Amino acid sequence: MNEKNFQKKQAALAALNYIQTDMIIGLGTGSTVSYFLDALAASQYNVIGVTTSTITSQRCAELNIPIVDIDAIDHIDVTVDGADEVDSYLNGIKGGGAALLMEKIVAKNSKKNIWIVDRSKVHNTLGSFPLPVEVIPYGSGQLLRQFANKGLFPKLRRHPGNNQPVITDAGHYIIDCHMTTINNPYALAEYLESQVGVVEHGLFLNICDRIIIGDNTVEIKERQQAHVEIN
Amino acid sequence: MNEKNFQKKQAALAALNYIQTDMIIGLGTGSTVSYFLDALAASQYNVIGVTTSTITSQRCAELNIPIVDIDAIDHIDVTVDGADEVDSYLNGIKGGGAALLMEKIVAKNSKKNIWIVDRSKVHNTLGSFPLPVEVIPYGSGQLLRQFANKGLFPKLRRHPGNNQPVITDAGHYIIDCHMTTINNPYALAEYLESQVGVVEHGLFLNICDRIIIGDNTVEIKERQQAHVEIN
Repeated sequence: MNEKNFQKKQAALAALNYIQTDMIIGLGTGSTVSYFLDALAASQYNVIGVTTSTITSQRCAELNIPIVDIDAIDHIDVTVDGADEVDSYLNGIKGGGAALLMEKIVAKNSKKNIWIVDRSKVHNTLGSFPLPVEVIPYGSGQLLRQFANKGLFPKLRRHPGNNQPVITDAGHYIIDCHMTTINNPYALAEYLESQVGVVEHGLFLNICDRIIIGDNTVEIKERQQAHVEIN
Repeated sequence: MNEKNFQKKQAALAALNYIQTDMIIGLGTGSTVSYFLDALAASQYNVIGVTTSTITSQRCAELNIPIVDIDAIDHIDVTVDGADEVDSYLNGIKGGGAALLMEKIVAKNSKKNIWIVDRSKVHNTLGSFPLPVEVIPYGSGQLLRQFANKGLFPKLRRHPGNNQPVITDAGHYIIDCHMTTINNPYALAEYLESQVGVVEHGLFLNICDRIIIGDNTVEIKERQQAHVEIN
């Protein structure tokens, strides 16, 4: 196991400390979450999962983790998910795996959100990971032009094999914005949310309560209070 | 022809005055637009249409109006659409026909927007027509709860026949909000846009440039300047 995977697994194992039996648990998507699902399945906890992608639903079926539809429950105790990038305010970018929409819906309906990451995901400022924006296919060409004019360096995500646009679980496209540095994520989020054709974006602001960074010694950071940047 | 249909047809015929040959025209959806499509097809204008629904695309095919994909052109000269309700600031509610998403995408990409309506659609304040909100099916039950708590009187739109949820052209649900009166449409729009799971809403604010109200004498109102309510 290479160093990065070791860190992912350490973070995933540490997240199990925040799980109790009978909890309803939001289950993220991605390679780090995959380690968490293994650990959860091996544990003695009697839990119910709410998944964030068809991939995670399939893995739960393989691991015999019972899952339930988000609209069939009235709360989610805690969600454990990965992140593509996290800053020092515990804000992050997600959506590298194209599951940001369902991940955000589950996160917003969760009492607590825990992110498990390896050290490489942690930066002072967001933006080195391209920001995914989920958009309606109809008119996406116009949005690409508009984002380019706004300086967001947008690129439609395509399958490397056949060059066809990637389609999300909900039937949308993903535009990745290669800005390098996001100076004001709050202003950018507001801009994106007001654009017609944008379904959701990968900026997860004021959502994560606790981040677990896997390493030889696991580092845990907790949100003290909401950080809102003044324009 | 009853009085309301007579008014719709009068408005539709009057809209033809703003069309010139070689224009790229956004084509709305609904019964009033249907009269406009008839008039456009009967005219000598050589135009290209950009449609807002599969229904309108089908009607264009029947009427031999050529259409083009929105992402294949770099501008739309003018869009002619109906509205479910219009207030005295030329703001409106759309989406009764479940086509609000594509209608808004086309409208936002148009240089000018003309709405054609019968007299019954015009009110001082919006809200007597239930506000449609297009949402992601996943988590829509949670959104319904949240909207109810916010006092929006939400109801999932269902087919009268089989009681199944109405699915939009883009694969989403529609929640109709029965508020009766919308005192601050700008604040409501901002709230809805920031909710995860909301794809788009039926408030069309600062979009319509000219409204044509069909009647024995046709009334035309033009937007003077953007109206923004101060909170």
